[in-house]
Amino acid sequence: MRTVEWHDGKVRLIDQRLLPAEFRVVELMDVEAVARAIREMVVRGAPAIGAAAGFGMALAARESPAHSRDGLLRDLEDAAAILRAARPTAVNLAWAVERVLRRVVEEQDPRRMREVALEEAQAIADEDVATNRRLGEIGAAVVPDGATILHHCNTGALATVDYGTALGVIRAAHEQGKRIHVLVDETRPRLQGARLTAWELQQLGIPFTLIVDNAAGHFMHTGQVDLVLVGADRIAANGDVANKIGTYKLAVVAKENGIPFYVCAPTSTVDLSLRAGTEIPIEERPPEEVTALTLMGRPAVPEGVAVANPAFDVTPHRYVTGIITERGIAYPPFHLTLPPLVKGGTR
Amino acid sequence: MRTVEWHDGKVRLIDQRLLPAEFRVVELMDVEAVARAIREMVVRGAPAIGAAAGFGMALAARESPAHSRDGLLRDLEDAAAILRAARPTAVNLAWAVERVLRRVVEEQDPRRMREVALEEAQAIADEDVATNRRLGEIGAAVVPDGATILHHCNTGALATVDYGTALGVIRAAHEQGKRIHVLVDETRPRLQGARLTAWELQQLGIPFTLIVDNAAGHFMHTGQVDLVLVGADRIAANGDVANKIGTYKLAVVAKENGIPFYVCAPTSTVDLSLRAGTEIPIEERPPEEVTALTLMGRPAVPEGVAVANPAFDVTPHRYVTGIITERGIAYPPFHLTLPPLVKGGTR
Repeated sequence: MRTVEWHDGKVRLIDQRLLPAEFRVVELMDVEAVARAIREMVVRGAPAIGAAAGFGMALAARESPAHSRDGLLRDLEDAAAILRAARPTAVNLAWAVERVLRRVVEEQDPRRMREVALEEAQAIADEDVATNRRLGEIGAAVVPDGATILHHCNTGALATVDYGTALGVIRAAHEQGKRIHVLVDETRPRLQGARLTAWELQQLGIPFTLIVDNAAGHFMHTGQVDLVLVGADRIAANGDVANKIGTYKLAVVAKENGIPFYVCAPTSTVDLSLRAGTEIPIEERPPEEVTALTLMGRPAVPEGVAVANPAFDVTPHRYVTGIITERGIAYPPFHLTLPPLVKGGTR
Repeated sequence: MRTVEWHDGKVRLIDQRLLPAEFRVVELMDVEAVARAIREMVVRGAPAIGAAAGFGMALAARESPAHSRDGLLRDLEDAAAILRAARPTAVNLAWAVERVLRRVVEEQDPRRMREVALEEAQAIADEDVATNRRLGEIGAAVVPDGATILHHCNTGALATVDYGTALGVIRAAHEQGKRIHVLVDETRPRLQGARLTAWELQQLGIPFTLIVDNAAGHFMHTGQVDLVLVGADRIAANGDVANKIGTYKLAVVAKENGIPFYVCAPTSTVDLSLRAGTEIPIEERPPEEVTALTLMGRPAVPEGVAVANPAFDVTPHRYVTGIITERGIAYPPFHLTLPPLVKGGTR
């Protein structure tokens, strides 16, 4: 199944909090449940969140008791607000919600409005898969045969509707027969690398080695990394990239060692309304993500400790070698190369 | 009690694998047990390992059945080999073993040799406490009032016989009445920051915030860090520093953001026999340190995953602002400033 899909009037998600220990599918009946699943990271990854939010709008349209166009629009605006508030950093969420809303307001008949809400949400999900395959194929061109690729967080099928962004590039290079090896950052605090990326690579038969995030610098500095590939949660018009916490350190150390650092994201992750990364809101997540940890069966953190837990950081564009999208690769200066790529789309 | 001490013919250690969940003291009866405790990180931290190894030599002398000087020396050479093999990176281990051996060979009478082995080991332990207090006082001079200090791993009383190195500097600044705040890197894989540094700072009443290692870059980049203080496991003659994995990334990002990066270590951590950090052996630790992790009660890593687990990395001297020792602060060029500081000692 896909990571996010519409099934029999409900939104179905793979519960990513339980992997790799358990593969469980959850079915959501209303928009509040979708927002909660996004907030609690049952579903995560910018494109997957976008698709889930699109379906959340379709659910809201279906569940609304409104008989009038205005009543239905009011309910959809409320649903949009609930979804947008779920997580602040990934722009794909707001992008998908807007896209469904824009399509719905073109219609007059409430029944037709409900239909197009679902059609548009389904289109977002279907396009995401096609987008990732194109992005992967384009990106594979920058992966040399024999390359060792350092990867942060999870950007695979689980972070999208299917196939993946940075992991999609890795997958495409592998499918093309290139011999590659992936160094997988475990990605504290939620261990998306250790839990999800390791699981996906195992299933795909792509060779990899798991490391703690602290070790990435050692491998870069000792000449054991050819390429860094990461995803993105929001990219500003100047090419500054918000992505999973730890990305900024990787980018700085990659540049210091002359290692290419590519960001892989669909154009829906680019937010041209923001001039620079400093304008991107950075989500602060609950301290329990850091403290709810046991090492060899024992609690690892003393009681009552103050914790800061920013979920993302911003990598300034000067550390980014290129931004790989489904419409091509943008190279610096990004403020000139990125907007035409984003606006050049037909949708 | 001290982290490492001689008590009633045995070596007593605080079992650091169990903290903060449990405070347990172990007593070791022979040199093999001391070597195992070092290897399994019951005791860790370069100065603490050195002191434990010194007492291990005293134990070996005591336990040896030899009646002749030559027989006892042979047994002590065997013990030295066992201890040296326990962990390869921290030079304090070999340094302490050599120091006891050098003292013992000055004597002729086996009974006197046994006495001086213990006297020398005790001197190493006692000097370590005094050394750290001097180091702390000297280092506190570089800590501005109101500073936020980023700290990696554990360099406190638990990493030494008492008081600490980098954490000793923090402690001295606090004792001088400076208002400081510590950002504590949790320090994967063994979480010495989350488990040990947080515990020590809590007991000392020094304000701190725990973060995942990935977040350190974000705080440096957003102007929230005034100073980085770390310890060291071995320092080459040119100022290259081997320290806990992740230190290199911190140092690169600190320099990129114009943040002073100080290494705090006794002169016994400096290995003038090595010209550069590339000559320092880097220990590879068992994969279970990375994989034996549960998140919210569930295994976090799929079965059968390949893991790389280097315990240390090397930070080239060009990223180091200064090296704080008990005899003063060495500034670049370290190949000129460091050797006189080390050789200038009276011992």
